Amino acid sequence: MRWWGWGDAQRAQELPEGAAALLRATLGAEGGLRPPVALDQVTLPPSRLDPGGRSRLAAIVGEEGVRDDHGSRVLHAAGKGYPDLVRLRAGRPEGAPDAVLYPESHEQVRAVLEACSEARTAVVPWGGGTSVVGGVAPLRGEMDAVVALDLRRLGRLLALDSVSRLATVQAGMRGPALEAALGAQGFTLGHFPQSFEYVSIGGCVATRSAGQASTGYGRIDDMVFGLRAAAPAGEISLPAFPASAAGPDLRELMVGSEGALGVLTEVCLRVRPRPPSRRYEGMFFRTFAEGVEALRAGAQEHALPDVTRLSDEAETGVSLALTGQDSLRLRAGRAYLRARGYARGCVAILGWEGEPEDLARRRGTGLALLREHGGLSVGSGPGRRWARARYEGPYLRDWLLDRGVLVETLETATRWSRLEGLHRAVGDALRSALGGRGTPAVVMCHVSHVYETGASLYFTFLARQEAGAEIEQWQAAKSAATDAIVAGGGTLTHHHAVGRDHAPWLGAEVGPLGLAALGAVKRELDPQGIMNPGKLVTG
Amino acid sequence: MRWWGWGDAQRAQELPEGAAALLRATLGAEGGLRPPVALDQVTLPPSRLDPGGRSRLAAIVGEEGVRDDHGSRVLHAAGKGYPDLVRLRAGRPEGAPDAVLYPESHEQVRAVLEACSEARTAVVPWGGGTSVVGGVAPLRGEMDAVVALDLRRLGRLLALDSVSRLATVQAGMRGPALEAALGAQGFTLGHFPQSFEYVSIGGCVATRSAGQASTGYGRIDDMVFGLRAAAPAGEISLPAFPASAAGPDLRELMVGSEGALGVLTEVCLRVRPRPPSRRYEGMFFRTFAEGVEALRAGAQEHALPDVTRLSDEAETGVSLALTGQDSLRLRAGRAYLRARGYARGCVAILGWEGEPEDLARRRGTGLALLREHGGLSVGSGPGRRWARARYEGPYLRDWLLDRGVLVETLETATRWSRLEGLHRAVGDALRSALGGRGTPAVVMCHVSHVYETGASLYFTFLARQEAGAEIEQWQAAKSAATDAIVAGGGTLTHHHAVGRDHAPWLGAEVGPLGLAALGAVKRELDPQGIMNPGKLVTG
Repeated sequence: MRWWGWGDAQRAQELPEGAAALLRATLGAEGGLRPPVALDQVTLPPSRLDPGGRSRLAAIVGEEGVRDDHGSRVLHAAGKGYPDLVRLRAGRPEGAPDAVLYPESHEQVRAVLEACSEARTAVVPWGGGTSVVGGVAPLRGEMDAVVALDLRRLGRLLALDSVSRLATVQAGMRGPALEAALGAQGFTLGHFPQSFEYVSIGGCVATRSAGQASTGYGRIDDMVFGLRAAAPAGEISLPAFPASAAGPDLRELMVGSEGALGVLTEVCLRVRPRPPSRRYEGMFFRTFAEGVEALRAGAQEHALPDVTRLSDEAETGVSLALTGQDSLRLRAGRAYLRARGYARGCVAILGWEGEPEDLARRRGTGLALLREHGGLSVGSGPGRRWARARYEGPYLRDWLLDRGVLVETLETATRWSRLEGLHRAVGDALRSALGGRGTPAVVMCHVSHVYETGASLYFTFLARQEAGAEIEQWQAAKSAATDAIVAGGGTLTHHHAVGRDHAPWLGAEVGPLGLAALGAVKRELDPQGIMNPGKLVTG
Repeated sequence: MRWWGWGDAQRAQELPEGAAALLRATLGAEGGLRPPVALDQVTLPPSRLDPGGRSRLAAIVGEEGVRDDHGSRVLHAAGKGYPDLVRLRAGRPEGAPDAVLYPESHEQVRAVLEACSEARTAVVPWGGGTSVVGGVAPLRGEMDAVVALDLRRLGRLLALDSVSRLATVQAGMRGPALEAALGAQGFTLGHFPQSFEYVSIGGCVATRSAGQASTGYGRIDDMVFGLRAAAPAGEISLPAFPASAAGPDLRELMVGSEGALGVLTEVCLRVRPRPPSRRYEGMFFRTFAEGVEALRAGAQEHALPDVTRLSDEAETGVSLALTGQDSLRLRAGRAYLRARGYARGCVAILGWEGEPEDLARRRGTGLALLREHGGLSVGSGPGRRWARARYEGPYLRDWLLDRGVLVETLETATRWSRLEGLHRAVGDALRSALGGRGTPAVVMCHVSHVYETGASLYFTFLARQEAGAEIEQWQAAKSAATDAIVAGGGTLTHHHAVGRDHAPWLGAEVGPLGLAALGAVKRELDPQGIMNPGKLVTG
């Protein structure tokens, strides 16, 4: 993972020149390059970990399990949110962990937490480090030092009960490694967030992640049946039951706990047979509103594909521009859409997975229902393009950051009856906040997680960066959007978690007594307050 | 509701004489009648509520909202578990609330909790009063008095968002009233526990109830999207979102909170269109093991009916005996089963609900799959009989209690790979515990809630009562069964809740730190400890 951006340098992406020119014109961007500084130019504060503290930790995780070199500290200095990348690229992260620890077992994690509780050292649990909400910011809070607890050595599939379809997995296992291990036995988890190639499964659980195929496989919270966590006060171990009425569900307290209550070390997940067939395809709707109504019908009839995704008019326009060269085929496609009245329409991506026969049956039912609601099938081209690029958004972000473009995403979910109002309100808030600063915004949105009672909205917005005021500019947009979400009846976050960025609004969602209840649990499990300070529970 | 038993005297049930004679012979029961005492023979402790305390409460809920007459106190002296009924029928309940309060609004509930916190009066939230685990026992704990808070006046459907399929309902609304109100607008909740005719929706939520059609509609916890609760420390209000990643799910902390953290006053529930068609039918499997495998395949292929229920060999035998007269038709049916090799088999009840066309399609797929796994369709007779008697089990229990028979149920759930072992272990534990006391037991079981990863097991057991030692006898059986459940990898309870009866084992399920976390939430929401003492969180 590149310290100043995303992933593998070999896979860097760029915008086709046509789209780039259009974007420059729309945003008023200049197009000059603003590359990141070199690694050795990144300024870090000196490590606050004294030799005694360091050797106490090394006694637990081994000498090779403690790193405090410049590179390791920079790599763990921030997540992958827009402000993180702006600061890192400028060589000025807010801070860095005083050391990075690599425990190898639940017991080592427990021992680290005990040692850090005694030493007043804050602990930031670290999975893939892909948080986009400040969830892994190296904050000390009131502690004297801070370490990142990188769980990559907890990377094994521990058990697979194929009869019950339950897999027990160490929390640090990465998405691709888990899929490979399950796939070797004919199974899949079915959890594919955009960050799939880098996430840890524990990180997904701790942040209530939702994958691109969530309509079929469910969110990560639907997949977690049991878990084991280490907290400063001890161990939480919750066995996997298919269902239980034994009081409040403590799993649901640890799922989404964002490292603030303890460290997930093992999770027991529901798995499914690896689908032998996949079919991704496109469908157009005349308007976003029409598409939303079709998705609602599909969700309420349980007739949707496993991947269900609907772009609004703006995102559809950008998608079409991104397909690049105005080939004969694309021009023919556009003529077809125009002739049918879908010229300014919205594209949906529909992805079906499963046994061929079952897939064909479900697809037949689903497409018929969506067509009844106005959908126009446009073949497998858009589906193939989406599937090819499904993990590449963050690469494109790096390319845009290189060129002085603010690019950020945020997301929410609400009930169907409020979806269109919220879509409008958040878009207006972003356009107004950024336009008011003299940096007109492009805002686009899609629905990508669909439920009987409502759906998610995922916004991407772009504007020309305000050089020297990048963070204030971002903060203004983020605040305006979040205020609009709260006022419009949306949740603060559908799958990005609370982290640091949403924490000021959590009380608006769960109320003061809800916050107090969370605080009480936090004090019980983490009496010294060492766990991931400044995130989630900040009171 | 009859104070000493179940429901409506007009609907009393009795065993057919053939079955009764068989039961007497098997259990060695004498058959003499042991009727309940008269209401005025029930001994209650004097009310501990002084006139000042009484008038402070009357100032909140109105004079007609406070009752402390003998009849009201007896009706709220216990739930409907076996030990409850044994004690009530003998005229010797363990205690009784000092008064029964009937608040009319969330605000009145809040005010009552504040007044009771000040006055050191314990509060037992009361919905339908149908707990079978001691969940509404009038325990004072360390308080000076105890009141029952009967929520029947909070009985309205507040709002129906038919686009989002979300209904906002006051917590005291009874099952039939809610279904009638939803049905008038074309919807159903789809939650039909055996106690349906008497339960309150708040009680269902507070105890994580599961209805008979849970395979299709889900458990109550799958239906709750938002809620409002009054706690001594304030209000918890959680809006309904289709999904959220905003930290730990506090809904899941209040769902299943059993009145120990506060009082649910409103819940926002997912509803579905009222199904125009229903079809209930029977299927036989050669053995319970074969049926379990078929259900597992159906659950994992998502091909099961909305009601899915499989009796083991013992329960099937009793069901056949209960059908009564050995009619020509039944004899023909048995001959058919014998000829096909299902003579000692197990009956499953399959209930399909929905639009006729969709129902037919799903039924075709489901039956084909179950037949592939050994199922033999036996027509709609068993389904019709089951549907007719679906709420009548508790009436039969009263008839058996009249005749000196210990009859009790208990339930659990576990993953598929442990289901048969647990079925055997719990049956053995019950037979051994009761047989060892000289009261041989009949133990029967069914699976009635089926999931991808596992299923529930619901046991009914009968034995001759030990006159004068009824409670000790029950406790011995209950303890043996619960120990076997914990040792065999089952949850303490799949849908009956923790209450008082399971509380001693809760630590075995969630661990000491899990208990401590619950205790911390309890102290935050209920600092004086007035809420439902002795249930759920007892430490």
